[in-house]
Amino acid sequence: MSTITHVNPDDLHKNPAFSQGTIVETRRLLFVGGQNGIDAEGKIEGDALQPSKQALRNVLNVLNVAGATQADVARLGIYFTMDVDIYAAYEASNEVWGDYPTAITVLRVAALGRPEAKVEIEAVAALR
Amino acid sequence: MSTITHVNPDDLHKNPAFSQGTIVETRRLLFVGGQNGIDAEGKIEGDALQPSKQALRNVLNVLNVAGATQADVARLGIYFTMDVDIYAAYEASNEVWGDYPTAITVLRVAALGRPEAKVEIEAVAALR
Amino acid sequence: MSTITHVNPDDLHKNPAFSQGTIVETRRLLFVGGQNGIDAEGKIEGDALQPSKQALRNVLNVLNVAGATQADVARLGIYFTMDVDIYAAYEASNEVWGDYPTAITVLRVAALGRPEAKVEIEAVAALR
Repeated sequence: MSTITHVNPDDLHKNPAFSQGTIVETRRLLFVGGQNGIDAEGKIEGDALQPSKQALRNVLNVLNVAGATQADVARLGIYFTMDVDIYAAYEASNEVWGDYPTAITVLRVAALGRPEAKVEIEAVAALR
Repeated sequence: MSTITHVNPDDLHKNPAFSQGTIVETRRLLFVGGQNGIDAEGKIEGDALQPSKQALRNVLNVLNVAGATQADVARLGIYFTMDVDIYAAYEASNEVWGDYPTAITVLRVAALGRPEAKVEIEAVAALR
Repeated sequence: MSTITHVNPDDLHKNPAFSQGTIVETRRLLFVGGQNGIDAEGKIEGDALQPSKQALRNVLNVLNVAGATQADVARLGIYFTMDVDIYAAYEASNEVWGDYPTAITVLRVAALGRPEAKVEIEAVAALR
């Protein structure tokens, strides 16, 4: 059973890729800091697609260590620079993340904290 | 009774439009995903002011379905592109949102996830 | 005792400046709205470094009024414009914030809500 209740009002536009809102009912929340797609050696490899996947793998890693899965994620913040093909990035992300819609905020920013990064993904999850 | 306690330190600059901090005391949180001002047909109509109002209407819609009102919102994230007149947008927003200050973060971004969007508004609310 | 449990997976790159994730176990959360480094008179003084420090002092002020310290912060959102020397800003911040890593998201934005601002910092903290 997921810890998240999805809220999708009937009269709001539907998109299977995300939920309009999520409700968490828990005393324990996990905040996953912004992941740039840095690998275990601290490097960002490849164009934007590989780091997008690596960023989500890092989010999944933190979720896993905390005892959660992507089904427990209440919010994803997804931040891209302007030179990323956002649809290609979504497709790449889907390979890693799978079909787990949640409440998302997607922004195109001037840059990320790490100068060479093109993507940053943060999460909030409910823990049991 | 609101579920939110407002925190406005005496020695911080005051602005009636927002609170410096908010405290939620609840086991249930609602995360409203970033709303671009998309209408029920999935379209963004008009310049930035109409989508700003529609974005807040969509936030209110999600709050309502989850059993909350704008008095229960602990945080608003408000993201505009550079070509939006931010003061006009605030004024337009006020017609929809009313006098419900909360903790806000306002950023000017390069673009939103949806290319034609000029505004995105997300929220966190406390549920009873 | 801190209200926060830090999550740093063994196989993720380590950085002493932040935590990959944080767990809060509480019924009470504090949301600190984005602080631009405005002083008590409502002005932003100096280049980016002074406002970065003032922004964190304002965050600490709100935490303090709510009964929390930087050890209770689960997430910091740190937003800079492109003309800020991010490493100088980190160093300046450290004087104010000290050695309290948490989950962070760092974005470079086109501008902040207040036109002359170069930095905005928001926080989520666990209250006892």
